[in-house]
Amino acid sequence: MSTAISNLQSWLKEQDMQAAMLTSPDTVFYLSGFRTNPHERLLALLVFQEAEPFLVCPKMEVEAARNAGWNFEIISYTDIENPWESIYSSVSKRAINIQKLAVEKEHLNVERFEKVNKLFSSPKLFAAEEKLRQLRMVKNDKEIELIREACKIADFAVEAGVAEISEGKTEMEILAAIEFELKKTGINEMAFSTMVLTGANAASPHGTPGITKIKKGDLVLFDLGVVYNGYCSDITRTVAYGGVSDKQAEIYRTVLKAQEAAASATKPGISCSELDLTARRIITEQGYGEYFPHRLGHGLGTSVHEYPSLTETNLLKLQEGMVFTIEPGIYVPGLAGVRIEDDILVTSDGFEALTKYPKTLQII
Amino acid sequence: MSTAISNLQSWLKEQDMQAAMLTSPDTVFYLSGFRTNPHERLLALLVFQEAEPFLVCPKMEVEAARNAGWNFEIISYTDIENPWESIYSSVSKRAINIQKLAVEKEHLNVERFEKVNKLFSSPKLFAAEEKLRQLRMVKNDKEIELIREACKIADFAVEAGVAEISEGKTEMEILAAIEFELKKTGINEMAFSTMVLTGANAASPHGTPGITKIKKGDLVLFDLGVVYNGYCSDITRTVAYGGVSDKQAEIYRTVLKAQEAAASATKPGISCSELDLTARRIITEQGYGEYFPHRLGHGLGTSVHEYPSLTETNLLKLQEGMVFTIEPGIYVPGLAGVRIEDDILVTSDGFEALTKYPKTLQII
Repeated sequence: MSTAISNLQSWLKEQDMQAAMLTSPDTVFYLSGFRTNPHERLLALLVFQEAEPFLVCPKMEVEAARNAGWNFEIISYTDIENPWESIYSSVSKRAINIQKLAVEKEHLNVERFEKVNKLFSSPKLFAAEEKLRQLRMVKNDKEIELIREACKIADFAVEAGVAEISEGKTEMEILAAIEFELKKTGINEMAFSTMVLTGANAASPHGTPGITKIKKGDLVLFDLGVVYNGYCSDITRTVAYGGVSDKQAEIYRTVLKAQEAAASATKPGISCSELDLTARRIITEQGYGEYFPHRLGHGLGTSVHEYPSLTETNLLKLQEGMVFTIEPGIYVPGLAGVRIEDDILVTSDGFEALTKYPKTLQII
Repeated sequence: MSTAISNLQSWLKEQDMQAAMLTSPDTVFYLSGFRTNPHERLLALLVFQEAEPFLVCPKMEVEAARNAGWNFEIISYTDIENPWESIYSSVSKRAINIQKLAVEKEHLNVERFEKVNKLFSSPKLFAAEEKLRQLRMVKNDKEIELIREACKIADFAVEAGVAEISEGKTEMEILAAIEFELKKTGINEMAFSTMVLTGANAASPHGTPGITKIKKGDLVLFDLGVVYNGYCSDITRTVAYGGVSDKQAEIYRTVLKAQEAAASATKPGISCSELDLTARRIITEQGYGEYFPHRLGHGLGTSVHEYPSLTETNLLKLQEGMVFTIEPGIYVPGLAGVRIEDDILVTSDGFEALTKYPKTLQII
């Protein structure tokens, strides 16, 4: 049994709930080790206080689930079979009467909700999201290794992107070249839509990559991440093309100073708020406070956005094993957009930056 | 008002439902012309029997919705605002008392379902999916033009892939080259995960592209599609590398004959079943019936899989304006995998193949 499942079982006992039925692919992967995208088909993991958990998946996925290490019961079904009666039987044979059920309320749809109600006589439903987010927040060694590997690949991707920069190339051309290099190495899933933004586009927090061409004096911003064995990375670097103005250099220095100060302050016991404010104070003192419109960062794991959220109001204290981004930015419309982002692991007495691509201002 | 919305309003009247609340991005796009991926944020379209419809979307999306041509009311909200009270007010100001509500039961989640129940005093919910699928099945001229364009790009992508074939290249290298060519032309969304499969991998219905290298005597299968202004294409071609055995050639001929026979049989009034059986009979007579394990094809539009479903049991009759794939295949483990797929438009007296890449067996 995975530690994650044991933790969830303890929670069910505390809350006096008989079962949890988890349906989002991310959560099923986190708890079972089996990662799949079932599209419109049902994927579910049933966890009980004491009884053995079971997995529900399409028949053609059974082998993949076994290969991923799932050794408990599997209920499988073909496209012309209905899995719900089997689910009911499997619960019944465990002699469990579900009166309180934890589900992912943001994922379970009404069609399935109605099936659950009918089979289990309308149990009272409770949201499992908050607890799952808490559990997922602290990573174990295996998870850290996977994120570390995803970060190495992200470093490689930034390097590939920087190598592509030249006069007149479009954002999309550079983006395509990065993903081409990744695909050749066997990476075929990005953690989110890759961003390559240049000039005024990089200075807009809503910029999307397009046919804008790189020209001298532009700052070029890369924001990307990959999924490696189910775990995500997320890195941002900003480089200059053909020279940099004093103002651009000042903005870059300010963001870098804020980023490094927040990273250096990272250790168990410090709050998320303190980290955000460490960076925010530096940017504000330099006069750019209003141009840093977003939180300092976000947790990272099987999803590219998870807990903890590094905002100025989050008093949650850091714990060893948390992994999150530190990514301050300054966006002055028409002038410059700079963001620098690392993935940071909280260690027993400090931090380790898992993304390692250099941060000194590069002029290409 | 779009014809699609008027059709939905007529249905609400027939069914005596006061409103429909649609939440899937595909449906919102189909009805409003506004296509977006709101991730976890709420996107919704409220349609009433007579009253003006309204759209609910994140504040930062309002401009894009207007640019997409949405001229009716928009309720927008920031990340720290709750849109539900505004939704309630907008319904109230139309003096509508919602007792029966159509929703997408396969999309609406329990969290939102609970909000709807609270605001509107637990209306009786009805599934909107079946009606929407019926409406979407028959395309108008504008939709057909967009699919036609998506098909042209799919033809180009196959051409790019075939040009990449050479001894020792891996499936992923070829796949990456195809998507690179597409990205350079500004296409950044595939309709589904591109498949490039070679040799034994192409002969498995569950093959996924990897590091298998192309070698002489292999059949190479391409299955891909793009999204163009919200509309999908889906093409499959199989080519031979460095020669072909008699058996491979026979399998190819059989699939091609089945594919062309089913296409030629296409016209208004023929049933989906008849098309499937036209292809299936040819493959069965040649002794490969058990190696054609899937339906003949599926509808295509804003989603890559929609109605009609071309199975041997679907008695639905074809209508002018339907667009679907015809994609028979034969997969003999260890020997050969061949699938040939076109996107077919039903015309007033027959059909038009929207994908046009040649189907004669190519030996590279």
